[in-house]
Amino acid sequence: MPSIGQKKDDRVNWIYGVNPVSEAIKSGRLINAVYVRQESQKHLSSIIEAAKAHGIHVKFETKDFFEGRFHKGHQGIAAHAAKKETVSVEDLLAIPAKKGEAPFFIILDNIEDPRNFGAILRVADAAGVHGVVFQSHRSAGITPVTAKSSAGALEHVNVAETVNIKHAMEKMKKDDIVLIGAEAGAGIEPWNLDMSGPISIVIGSEGEGLRRTVREMCDMTASLPMKGTVNSLNVSVAAGILAYEVLRQRQKAG
Amino acid sequence: MPSIGQKKDDRVNWIYGVNPVSEAIKSGRLINAVYVRQESQKHLSSIIEAAKAHGIHVKFETKDFFEGRFHKGHQGIAAHAAKKETVSVEDLLAIPAKKGEAPFFIILDNIEDPRNFGAILRVADAAGVHGVVFQSHRSAGITPVTAKSSAGALEHVNVAETVNIKHAMEKMKKDDIVLIGAEAGAGIEPWNLDMSGPISIVIGSEGEGLRRTVREMCDMTASLPMKGTVNSLNVSVAAGILAYEVLRQRQKAG
Repeated sequence: MPSIGQKKDDRVNWIYGVNPVSEAIKSGRLINAVYVRQESQKHLSSIIEAAKAHGIHVKFETKDFFEGRFHKGHQGIAAHAAKKETVSVEDLLAIPAKKGEAPFFIILDNIEDPRNFGAILRVADAAGVHGVVFQSHRSAGITPVTAKSSAGALEHVNVAETVNIKHAMEKMKKDDIVLIGAEAGAGIEPWNLDMSGPISIVIGSEGEGLRRTVREMCDMTASLPMKGTVNSLNVSVAAGILAYEVLRQRQKAG
Repeated sequence: MPSIGQKKDDRVNWIYGVNPVSEAIKSGRLINAVYVRQESQKHLSSIIEAAKAHGIHVKFETKDFFEGRFHKGHQGIAAHAAKKETVSVEDLLAIPAKKGEAPFFIILDNIEDPRNFGAILRVADAAGVHGVVFQSHRSAGITPVTAKSSAGALEHVNVAETVNIKHAMEKMKKDDIVLIGAEAGAGIEPWNLDMSGPISIVIGSEGEGLRRTVREMCDMTASLPMKGTVNSLNVSVAAGILAYEVLRQRQKAG
């Protein structure tokens, strides 16, 4: 379905909101122009200056321009930019050695909501994850909502888009990276697993969790204890808890 | 400003979405009627049966009924219900002893976004937090969006609404509960603090963090290390990481 791919590409060219736009400018992403709501000119002066300092054209637009194009949360600023550059799985795998760190990746098994995708990228940035792998189909792509929800982290996290995450999982296994599936229910708590070595955390979709075939490829599964009645966590919250448990173990080990 | 209070009360009478409505039915919250979109009748049969089993009147409505009233995510189901019952801080403080557990509370210092409030309630349910305290003014209240974002956890978490959280903090101090402020930046990592005893985690607002006067009342502050460029986490993700660190420590201690 090339039309879907194309649609995604079109949408990705817009970024909106203060954090996403200012992080895109800082990161050096190619930007055609930054659009500012006339009324917000004064309030947004520092970001306007940053854009100009990077030689980016700044245009002033009406309220209607913004409200017709973006979700709430645009804050009177948007940028029309080149697509976020993704990297190959091979490139991702080369990053930890360059940093002299044990590999730490996140693989997403069909996250559907771009807000969750963005929130996980924000976790990945904060926790120092070396890269995030996601699958082109049946997943939230890199949309303006993803960028917005990542609070700008999208610009700084290494992201690999693959046709099938299982291929990426195989490559990681060959590199002696331990694949840890995150699963609700009665598994081993993450703090009872050794995550100080080379690992990749595999996170399942919001509704369905890990696909069976993906779970079977994992070397072990980690489960967060559920003490309540509803017994579920948002997928980005679960990712955050697991990522910071990795950080904790590595601080103790280091 | 009684008008604002009244507006909140009006809005709270609606709950929408599959999880919020089914958890409200389960929890025994007083419900006037459950509204189902005609087209979704078959798909929602189990929740319709649950409502009828509880003697709740079920009405069938058009698509327009739902789209005019609710945000996206209503899933063709809503309930018109009595306000969520909150409890007093004194009542909250009595809960841990009844359960034979060390007190574990979350205090919210002016969370502004009802989606974050709801997501934190979901964390509180999953992590077995004894209660959540929030402030009536300058905070997201218990709205339909809060209920929706909590995935139904709102029904099961003990919530105390206070005019001023500082009064609640004082009462907790008198009960020898250690107040741990959560703060971005270079503080002590949560895993280097002892959180196995009686504690309350105090979480600041999305934009501003903890108010100075609230921070000064805390016995200590916990900071999550930030390894990236954007260096911030969503407030519900931060709450999740801290809450599960408490769980980890208590499992180890127990």
